[in-house]
Amino acid sequence: MKPISVGLLGIGTVGGGTFTVLERNREEITRRAGRAIAITVVADKDLARANSVVQNRARVIDDAWAVVNDPAVDIVVELIGGTKIAKDLMLKALENGKHVVTANKALLAQHGNEIFAAAQKKGVMVAFEAAVAGGVPIIKSLREGLAANRIEWIAGIINGTSNFILSEMRDKGASFDDVLKQAQKLGYAEADPTFDIEGVDAAHKLTIMAAIGFGIPMQFSAAYTEGISKLTREDIQYAEQLGYRIKLLGVTKRKANGIELRVHPTLIPARRLIANVEGVMNAVLVRGDAVGQTMYYGAGAGAEPTASAVVADLVDVARTMTADPEHRVPHLAFQPDRLSNVPILPMSEVETSYYLRLLVQDKTGVLADVTRILADLGISIDAMVQKEPSEGEDQTDIIMLTHQTVEKNINAAIAKIEALPVVASKVTRIRLEELG
Amino acid sequence: MKPISVGLLGIGTVGGGTFTVLERNREEITRRAGRAIAITVVADKDLARANSVVQNRARVIDDAWAVVNDPAVDIVVELIGGTKIAKDLMLKALENGKHVVTANKALLAQHGNEIFAAAQKKGVMVAFEAAVAGGVPIIKSLREGLAANRIEWIAGIINGTSNFILSEMRDKGASFDDVLKQAQKLGYAEADPTFDIEGVDAAHKLTIMAAIGFGIPMQFSAAYTEGISKLTREDIQYAEQLGYRIKLLGVTKRKANGIELRVHPTLIPARRLIANVEGVMNAVLVRGDAVGQTMYYGAGAGAEPTASAVVADLVDVARTMTADPEHRVPHLAFQPDRLSNVPILPMSEVETSYYLRLLVQDKTGVLADVTRILADLGISIDAMVQKEPSEGEDQTDIIMLTHQTVEKNINAAIAKIEALPVVASKVTRIRLEELG
Repeated sequence: MKPISVGLLGIGTVGGGTFTVLERNREEITRRAGRAIAITVVADKDLARANSVVQNRARVIDDAWAVVNDPAVDIVVELIGGTKIAKDLMLKALENGKHVVTANKALLAQHGNEIFAAAQKKGVMVAFEAAVAGGVPIIKSLREGLAANRIEWIAGIINGTSNFILSEMRDKGASFDDVLKQAQKLGYAEADPTFDIEGVDAAHKLTIMAAIGFGIPMQFSAAYTEGISKLTREDIQYAEQLGYRIKLLGVTKRKANGIELRVHPTLIPARRLIANVEGVMNAVLVRGDAVGQTMYYGAGAGAEPTASAVVADLVDVARTMTADPEHRVPHLAFQPDRLSNVPILPMSEVETSYYLRLLVQDKTGVLADVTRILADLGISIDAMVQKEPSEGEDQTDIIMLTHQTVEKNINAAIAKIEALPVVASKVTRIRLEELG
Repeated sequence: MKPISVGLLGIGTVGGGTFTVLERNREEITRRAGRAIAITVVADKDLARANSVVQNRARVIDDAWAVVNDPAVDIVVELIGGTKIAKDLMLKALENGKHVVTANKALLAQHGNEIFAAAQKKGVMVAFEAAVAGGVPIIKSLREGLAANRIEWIAGIINGTSNFILSEMRDKGASFDDVLKQAQKLGYAEADPTFDIEGVDAAHKLTIMAAIGFGIPMQFSAAYTEGISKLTREDIQYAEQLGYRIKLLGVTKRKANGIELRVHPTLIPARRLIANVEGVMNAVLVRGDAVGQTMYYGAGAGAEPTASAVVADLVDVARTMTADPEHRVPHLAFQPDRLSNVPILPMSEVETSYYLRLLVQDKTGVLADVTRILADLGISIDAMVQKEPSEGEDQTDIIMLTHQTVEKNINAAIAKIEALPVVASKVTRIRLEELG
């Protein structure tokens, strides 16, 4: 089957990430989608930038209209942003019967009702997983994964810039202005940060989630939006003392008389998982009447995390254009004839770190004997604690954390350690994962 | 269009939850699926139990074979469990051209390859979101939401019983045996808890996630499984002192020479979000090459959380049997002609709690004046801190947390408070959400 032909509008940060991810993971993506997905044409006003990313692997032009009008293009990926030209291009693409994938939350929050109606009329899809929380599949989770539930509320940290600023203000006791400057230096905040710090970006995303959660049209103009620019470090500290963290939260709730739709700085109990989402990360907490609370966490921005969502949408569309409906999504994600028979490794070949505890006699030289055994097997020690023996005892615990090693090594070490006459018991061994 | 007819095999905890959720949310589910989904027949050996749940809203029989052979049944929901009769029934249902929805992780981990092949041959689906992490849509997220990624590893707390036991051992310094007894009393552990505490249940779920993440066949027999029954409170405390938590983790990693597939107690840095998942909750951390780390959190068991996943699968199947492929999933989750025009509430009608900070003169009676204003407006105070004035200052901060109230009330209170002569500045007001 010939590849699905994608036309890419805009090859900036996310566009570049999309191009890169599709190329790098081409083989896995094809195994999942059942058909190759290829960006065949890229439109960008900055031809030099576009060419440096594309490197002759697709046609590069500066006329976006030529892409949406190209009969050879099956899917248009709109990553230009903004609500003017992007809207016109998108509507034209839909009118021409093309599916559209977009990350444009501002456009959807403000003109989604019109855009979806146009798509519906033409029997095509507008996919927009990348519009909310970057690579976190929150749209799919809300729209499909939680389809059994009456959604009660959604609360999300959905603007990484603001969350980074608040995390830094708390950790360093710094002022808003100082942290904002630092965020701009690190590339986490734009030169004009208004959309991020005043809650507008979060309100766009919240509007989209509310529509999906509650089955209501987009109503961005009714959203309440209050940013973080007036927050003081004193309030952050007082909140901390009372057991709370302050986060810029988007909250939408179903009430008897209507729906709350609001973005504002919010105190959250520090013990909640979502209160511990730090830096530029995003998290969305959803409460459904059947499932209770579920949370979705990950990078909310950046080239490849956002591209992850764009490409997932491309796979979604491709699966629909390819498979018989019953097998649109293969049981094991990959097409059944494209599973790979990779072996499962025996435990002896698994590589991880270890916690070791041994009961030893409290004599000089014990530690030297034990560490020598580990060193001889190439196992290095990350941390060690030797407990004081209890009153009247002549035995004591040694606890060690090792760096990564292969399990057969640690087993060999343990056998040798247990054979030492000063070691009074079996060694307790628990595996350790940094998950970093 | 006539409702999709579902035959339910087994109406125990999850089956009962499924029946209840489908009934209670019938209207919303129909708006999402584009067609009503009705359980028309229930098979259970315990007719009395079945009848008490069903209450004449469906046919109740004791012969599961009659359900899988019933030409009027479109989808069979298998909630019997186990790997013998459940397997035979499922294969028969598939042979008869019926879609199957199941929560049976043991069956899929051990016989999934055979079952999926049978489904593929007949052009029907086996949906199994409920098999891993209860209501958390982790199967959909891995299979569709992260389809752009080369998955590097998956690490999950996927057995609530074990996680509850470990949380309690840490919090209370209790022994494994004592906490297990308590868990059994609370209904968090079964009379024979082997599958949960020895890691077998987690290994079933991990096997399924590894297959989907890496595109490999199910290889449960090659999984390494070690439970928590030998963990001591001493090791939990030592780990804590070193900055780690011990969790029963399912870990699967792609390595150059094969795939690691292992369940065992694991030290995790305490600062990681997943290390703070407590009690019976589940969480799965996935690392993809494009998206980085994403995490999925929620209830991993229980009647309605698991039913949430079963019914989501029913909606998934129903959408495929109903919609034109392009609009299988409506843009806004609900069918476009079934959106509701619920109003967005003005901010004055929003109900939440508040943090208030006011700078006051350090005089007697100030607090009485302020609290009187709040009381008169029916606003009750949850916590209050009055700071000592700094050396040489005669002004000080009062911080108050209120209980829930409507925003127009708090605004009225603030106006009155600011009018008090002893109040020296504007009142700082930040909203507070318990997210409980």
